[in-house]
This record gives sequence, C-alpha cells and structure tokens, in this order.
Amino acid sequence: MQKLDFQQTAEFLRSCEDAYILIHQSPDGDCIGSGYSLQAVLRLMGKRAKVLCSDPIPQRFGFLLPSEPEEDFEPKCIIAVDVADPKLFGSCCEQYRDCVDLCVDHHISNLHYAKRTLLHADAAAACEVLYGLYRHMDIPFTEQIAKCLYTGIATDTGCFKFDNTTAQTHACAAEIMREFPDVRYGLINRNMFDVKSPSRLRAEMLMLQAMEYHLDGKCAMICVTQELLAQTGMEEQDTDGLANLPTQPEGVEVGITLRERETGVYKISMRSAKDVNVSAICQTLGGGGHIKAAGCLLRGSLEEVKTVLLEAVRKGMEQA
Amino acid sequence: MQKLDFQQTAEFLRSCEDAYILIHQSPDGDCIGSGYSLQAVLRLMGKRAKVLCSDPIPQRFGFLLPSEPEEDFEPKCIIAVDVADPKLFGSCCEQYRDCVDLCVDHHISNLHYAKRTLLHADAAAACEVLYGLYRHMDIPFTEQIAKCLYTGIATDTGCFKFDNTTAQTHACAAEIMREFPDVRYGLINRNMFDVKSPSRLRAEMLMLQAMEYHLDGKCAMICVTQELLAQTGMEEQDTDGLANLPTQPEGVEVGITLRERETGVYKISMRSAKDVNVSAICQTLGGGGHIKAAGCLLRGSLEEVKTVLLEAVRKGMEQA
Repeated sequence: MQKLDFQQTAEFLRSCEDAYILIHQSPDGDCIGSGYSLQAVLRLMGKRAKVLCSDPIPQRFGFLLPSEPEEDFEPKCIIAVDVADPKLFGSCCEQYRDCVDLCVDHHISNLHYAKRTLLHADAAAACEVLYGLYRHMDIPFTEQIAKCLYTGIATDTGCFKFDNTTAQTHACAAEIMREFPDVRYGLINRNMFDVKSPSRLRAEMLMLQAMEYHLDGKCAMICVTQELLAQTGMEEQDTDGLANLPTQPEGVEVGITLRERETGVYKISMRSAKDVNVSAICQTLGGGGHIKAAGCLLRGSLEEVKTVLLEAVRKGMEQA
Repeated sequence: MQKLDFQQTAEFLRSCEDAYILIHQSPDGDCIGSGYSLQAVLRLMGKRAKVLCSDPIPQRFGFLLPSEPEEDFEPKCIIAVDVADPKLFGSCCEQYRDCVDLCVDHHISNLHYAKRTLLHADAAAACEVLYGLYRHMDIPFTEQIAKCLYTGIATDTGCFKFDNTTAQTHACAAEIMREFPDVRYGLINRNMFDVKSPSRLRAEMLMLQAMEYHLDGKCAMICVTQELLAQTGMEEQDTDGLANLPTQPEGVEVGITLRERETGVYKISMRSAKDVNVSAICQTLGGGGHIKAAGCLLRGSLEEVKTVLLEAVRKGMEQA
C-alpha cells in the first residue's frame, strides 16, 4: 500500500491504459461526479475508460453522463473513487476488490485496500480532491467535467451548508463557475436539493404529523410504527434519508427516528443538532456511529423502547 | 444623484461622521449583516455609528450584533444599505427618506433615491458589495465582520443555491473562511436554513396536506382558505415564505399558493420551477412581479378562481 501525492497520481494516470473506474453502490453525486469526470479526463488523455457501478445511476444524475457511447474492453487498470471500503463496491464490482491499482478518496475511514491511495481527508468531497489533481495535471476542463465536479462538491456539502465545507471548497466552486459561467448551477442545485418525488413529500408530511416533543422540547421523536405504515400506505423505504427531520424544530438538540422493523423490534436513528454526542448515547444502548449521526436497535413495546431511549438521551445531554 | 465606485465610496466614508445606518423593515440576513458590518467598520475608523431598523432584529441574528453598548447621538450622516426603495424604511426611518447621503445596494430595481449610490446589480447580496468595498479600503476584518458578511451572502443566496450565486460570491466566502477558519459556519447555516419554529413546521405539514396537482402534474397548487385556517388554527402569516413549497414536487413547472384574504378575495403567489415566465402569466391576471416569482389578486368563488388561474397557467406554459 503506497500513499500518493498529486505528482505521483498524475504519473500513474499517464502510464495507465484501459481503466475501469469503480464507484460505490447506492451512488451519490460525489462518486458519480468523480467517476465520470475521471473517465472524461482519461479520454482526453487518449485512453479508454469506463465507469462501473453495482446500482443504476439515478435519473437525476443523467446530465453528468458522457454523450459518447460506452466502449467494451477488458481492463488493464482498476481505479476506485470515493470508495472507503471495498464492501461498498456491491455485487458487480466485488470481483475487483483485491486488485484495485489506485483509489482516490476523501474519507478518513479509508481502509487503504488499494495498491496506491490518494487520500485528502480534509477535502469535503472526492470531487474536491480530483479538482486539485486535474489542476495539478493542467487538464483543460470541458463543460461536462465542470458539471461533474460542481455537482459532486455541492451534493457532499449539502450545497456548501455542512461543517465539512472549507475555504478550499468554495475556492473550487469559484474557479469552476469562473471558467464555465453559463452552466445553470441554480437549476442543478434545484434538482439536487429541492425537487422531491410525490411519495417523498407525502412521507415528510406524515412524519411531521407524527413528530412528538420530549425533554422540554430538546428532543423530538418520530415513531414510524407498522401501524402508521399500514394506515397510510407509506413504505418504510420512503422514510430513508429523513432522519434529520426531527432536528429541524427550534430548540431541539437530539432528533430521533424510530422505525418498527417487525413487531417489537425498533431501528433507532439519532441525530445531534448541536453539541450532544449521539454516538456515545447509542453506544450505551448497544449501537454506535458518528458524533452527530448514530443508531441502535432496541426491542420491547413502543412505550418501553421510548422510555429507555429518553432516559439515555437525558443522561447524554447532562454530559454535553 | 451621483453613482459612486469603490474609491469614491471609500472617500465618502472616510469623511463622514456620526452615521445612522438604515436597513429595511422585516430585516433579513443580508441587510442585518450589511448594517452591522458597516457599523463595525466605521467604529474601527474611529467614528460613531448606529444601525436603525423599523422592526426588531429577529433573535436568530443576535450573534451578529456588537457586544459594545449602543451610543446615543444625533446623526450627521445617513447611510442606507440593501434598501432599494425608501418605502422599505418603514415607520421609524421614514423621516430620513429624503436625506440619505449614501446608499449601498445590489438590487437592479434601486430607485436611486439617495444623494450617492454604490450599486452592483450583479452582486448576490449587499454584503458581497460591502466585502469588495472593505477589501478596497484595506479594512482589517474582525470575526464579527466576517460573520456578518458570510451570513448576509449565505442567506441571500439560499446557501449558494440560487441562480444569483456567481464565482465572485464563492470567492468572497472562500476568503472569509480562509481568514477566519474557526467560525462555526455550519452551525450558522443550520440556524439560518434548517431550524424552524414549531408553528412553521406545522404550517408546512398542513400545506403539504392541502397540495393538489393539476395540468398533468406540471402545476401544483395549495389553497389556504379561511375554512382551512379555522379548522387547523393556523394563522395566515404562518404561511409567509412558503410560496416555494408547491414547486418542490418532481415534474412541477409552476407552483401556486392561493390565500383567501376575505370571503371571495384570493391573494395568489406564483413561482416558476424552471423556464415558465410567471410574471407574464400574472400580468394577464392584473398582477406582476419577477420572471420566477410573481403574484396577483383574484375575486370569485374558489372554483372560479382556480379555473381562471389554471387556464392562464396553461396558456403561459404553451408560450414557454
């Protein structure tokens, strides 16, 4: 395992031929932008390159794909982008897990599974790392490359809203927009952040309806029970990605979403709005995660589970 | 009326004494950030300065206010920031409308009511104009000035999401964050964009419940009738600022919010999700506004008003 800098990575890319570029399953804007920008760059360098993903690319990212048809070829080189753990390759890429020649990533949790790794853990997105790499290599950007990099950076930062956004992140966006001022960045952002499917909007409405306040309004909780799903026709996956909803009300410090997997089995998602360490709280309940986003699994009646949860949150708040 | 550049504005500020800084009524992040950053800059220059607003500064902007107490003094100089039209001064500042010595603004609609105007209509925020001015003057930023400018720029661009965001906007944010990397920008953004009062969250839920789809799903409409308000206990002002809600569903091109002011009198807010010119549509109904955000007033029964509206929208879409 070799750690590379920009210069070494550039040399590797110049020497490589016929690359498969692997991105992670359930692909998001950052791995899609990373993969397709690298494909475009390698093609500009006169090489064959192909992006591989276990799952289909969601339609809203279709504008990042190249207009040229995909070629068929056998790979001589395997590159992974934005993949911290080879488990995340998913089914169709599994076969390449032990032969990744280069990994470009920004996750501090990267397992260093590749022969060579370019890792910038302070970058907000893999696209931010690649932006720096392409600039180092003096690659002339096309509009497609600009859109890929912008979309990756914007989606991984919640449109420059999250804590991972740095001066460097904004500087990348500034340079991309300066070079391609006519791209409709506002429309990209609208499609990434504001447009919602009718079933997602309905799920948000039903979850807002179900929101309860506890601990003097410092804890908001949404209980997605089997009963609620049956009554409303909502499906459990409609609630995916909505774990931040109970952190929205003013004054809330911990937001909890409780989803009944089967009778008496509850999957808990806990989010911290400010400074409470929800990873520590979930650890006391047999779970874990990050400081601001954690989870656990609890068994019992709804009332029992809520009592246990609120007591753990109360203690966790005292320690914050 | 004199149009100023940075150099002339700098000279004016160096010569002025005892300034009142006027911001607009219903103050937002941009006018508050503009006003208090300018107060701080004038104080750094050894001058007395005071921010005046007809309405109280909302609590969530409290972190932008100076820690030093406000002084009492009679003004020798009146400066307006982010105020396009003296009507927007509101009650307590009305008396100054005809004696504004300097206006700094970014609205193309500025009425040039001041003796001198520094106007950059391509800037996303008045704070972006002031950022350029302070840099031109070589003012050393304090953390408070940095927070004011960042907050003004972030709030006026929907956190760098809207079309008004340019390369220059990101470059300002990059420089501010580079100079003050320890400010908790992510927390500022959370408080500006994610935190909602319980009554706002409830209003969002009730409006989502009331959303109807028309014209093959290309038009979404929310009817806030007197009946709905009475049934739910929601107040009409709870729906302020939610006119973008009906543009969220996938496939929607025009979002309409219809609010019954009194029996048979409806205030219509129309928003364009993409390319339909809603100002043109509202003009055919006796109203007007911007291309992407317009309105009008209609009279009749709810069914009559909806029929008229949908016919106008259908025609407007054909022309897009």
